[in-house]
Amino acid sequence: MSSPLKNDRFLRALRRQPVDCTPVWMMRQAGRYLPEYRAARARAGSFMDMVCAPELACEVTVQPLRRFPLDAAILFSDILTIPDAMGLGLHFVEGEGPRFRQPVRTAEDIRRLGVPDPETELRYVMDAVRTIRQALDGSVPLIGFSGSPWTLATYMVEGQGGTEFQTVKKLAYDEPALMNELLDKLADAVALYLEAQIKAGAQAVQIFDTWGGALAPDGFRRHSLAPMATVVRRLKKAALEVPVILFTKGGGPHLEALAATGCDALGVDWTVELGQARARVDGRVALQGNLDPVLLFARPERIREEVSRILDSYGQGPGHVFNLGHGILPETPPEHAAAMIQAVHELSAARR
Amino acid sequence: MSSPLKNDRFLRALRRQPVDCTPVWMMRQAGRYLPEYRAARARAGSFMDMVCAPELACEVTVQPLRRFPLDAAILFSDILTIPDAMGLGLHFVEGEGPRFRQPVRTAEDIRRLGVPDPETELRYVMDAVRTIRQALDGSVPLIGFSGSPWTLATYMVEGQGGTEFQTVKKLAYDEPALMNELLDKLADAVALYLEAQIKAGAQAVQIFDTWGGALAPDGFRRHSLAPMATVVRRLKKAALEVPVILFTKGGGPHLEALAATGCDALGVDWTVELGQARARVDGRVALQGNLDPVLLFARPERIREEVSRILDSYGQGPGHVFNLGHGILPETPPEHAAAMIQAVHELSAARR
Repeated sequence: MSSPLKNDRFLRALRRQPVDCTPVWMMRQAGRYLPEYRAARARAGSFMDMVCAPELACEVTVQPLRRFPLDAAILFSDILTIPDAMGLGLHFVEGEGPRFRQPVRTAEDIRRLGVPDPETELRYVMDAVRTIRQALDGSVPLIGFSGSPWTLATYMVEGQGGTEFQTVKKLAYDEPALMNELLDKLADAVALYLEAQIKAGAQAVQIFDTWGGALAPDGFRRHSLAPMATVVRRLKKAALEVPVILFTKGGGPHLEALAATGCDALGVDWTVELGQARARVDGRVALQGNLDPVLLFARPERIREEVSRILDSYGQGPGHVFNLGHGILPETPPEHAAAMIQAVHELSAARR
Repeated sequence: MSSPLKNDRFLRALRRQPVDCTPVWMMRQAGRYLPEYRAARARAGSFMDMVCAPELACEVTVQPLRRFPLDAAILFSDILTIPDAMGLGLHFVEGEGPRFRQPVRTAEDIRRLGVPDPETELRYVMDAVRTIRQALDGSVPLIGFSGSPWTLATYMVEGQGGTEFQTVKKLAYDEPALMNELLDKLADAVALYLEAQIKAGAQAVQIFDTWGGALAPDGFRRHSLAPMATVVRRLKKAALEVPVILFTKGGGPHLEALAATGCDALGVDWTVELGQARARVDGRVALQGNLDPVLLFARPERIREEVSRILDSYGQGPGHVFNLGHGILPETPPEHAAAMIQAVHELSAARR
């Protein structure tokens, strides 16, 4: 765990320090587009079996790093481990995504929820972080993560993904005090969880706010932004000097407000013009993004052109981590991901 | 068809002329949330049977006007009538949305597509417009509509909804000239279709760009915005003096560019702060929107508060048509829609 870091481009870029070339990683880089992942998954049984076994989580975390010269590893886990540890019974219905056996609907449901102790109730995650840090042996930094309080709340109240958020938004609109109670509890749980991941060895953390973009502006500020800001404050107050990245999908309208939380970097999706995003937040945070994941289905020459366009859009100077604008899709050809990563390193080095 | 219009608030607001109170209609106002619609649908057989029979389309178009004091009617039809008339075999798989039997994938597929003649191949739509105009008898104006060229292309190339747009975006990225050929043909078809609807009696038209927001900024300009701008130019050149509304879901980043097409109004979804949208386009177009459709699941008092907030956000002066930020959801209680409509009229009249 104490091996010196051989490649610190990613951490330097998050701190807006100069780098020899733009660092790159991919959301869901440990995932179904890799045949070796699918093989590991077939051996493991269920998705949650892989998440819960530190050795398996470690194996799939390092798989993409064996293939590609990525500048960071990200813990293989799920965004819904916290509500699972709260006793809601996370499970996956094939082809339909996550479900909870016990959705949270009433004041009583909310008050009954305990805040999980990460080192006991989410120990398998901390063990995975420690195992991965050892396996990485200082080659690249390890990113820890959590779902945002609002994103966790959407799944907990709806009981599943793929809805229009009728149930959770009705709760937010009709019973704002109760919604706050749930979000306060989740902000507490997320802060403790990320603190524990950092203590276990995570060298940066990312909060995935997958559904913040589904809210109207006022709701976004109250239910998505405010609890994330609480988490950032808690992490900074704990003097844990790891960079914190916030990624709100569809968060384009809110970049200034997200940057003002005190986080170190913002992930941006592909609908945002990166240069415009930078103009709006420059000097405050680094930016991470933002190639359309579907572009990886195009020819490698086109991928290289788009990488070039995004590097140009960000422009000169530090503070850019290259990434997709959302998770890599399961049908993506791995050699196209390779073409993107190579283009990022080559073209950004040539621009320096 | 020549009865004078008794309620012209909607048309006046689109032209940014003063009105006694803010006009309101709802996207998908003729739809499954109404028991009388579900009854008509059960009698008719399939959804397309209703769309294709002018008397049935007329019946469901006027249903919401019998219940609510709406300020406009919108033709009951489907956004995919054009590709259906092109011979792609539109059909609906229960619970999964639209499908095409013959998706468009190759240069040959695209070159084979004919541009439908609206008065023959889409005659059932024109007959529906004429029938509805007679039934309305000048009570409120009738809105015609079409899907945008890009939105039609996504369904035609993917063959279905609910995808991440891998196939259509791959075509756009790898073969831009071919994509343009498809979009040019669709822009021609949409312009002819809307011209014919206007000649048949539509008093305003709306272009639904449901999937423009899925594109990266450059792709949006090329594939969504440019063909819509062509349609607007064609309609304006034909000296058809009906207002044209463009509605790009997720189009928040592009309001200035959309306003510059020469359209009369922009629909905006609920993720946009209406006052900010107005500041960005004011003096050029009217704005239509933008209550979160899910808010209609909240208590009527909360609905009224949100209506008030949106009216305040738009502010004083003409040019606002109240609407939802997307289609009304099938599970919406009709009495909550009534509460919204009443609040819009009362609160906006009180502010004048």
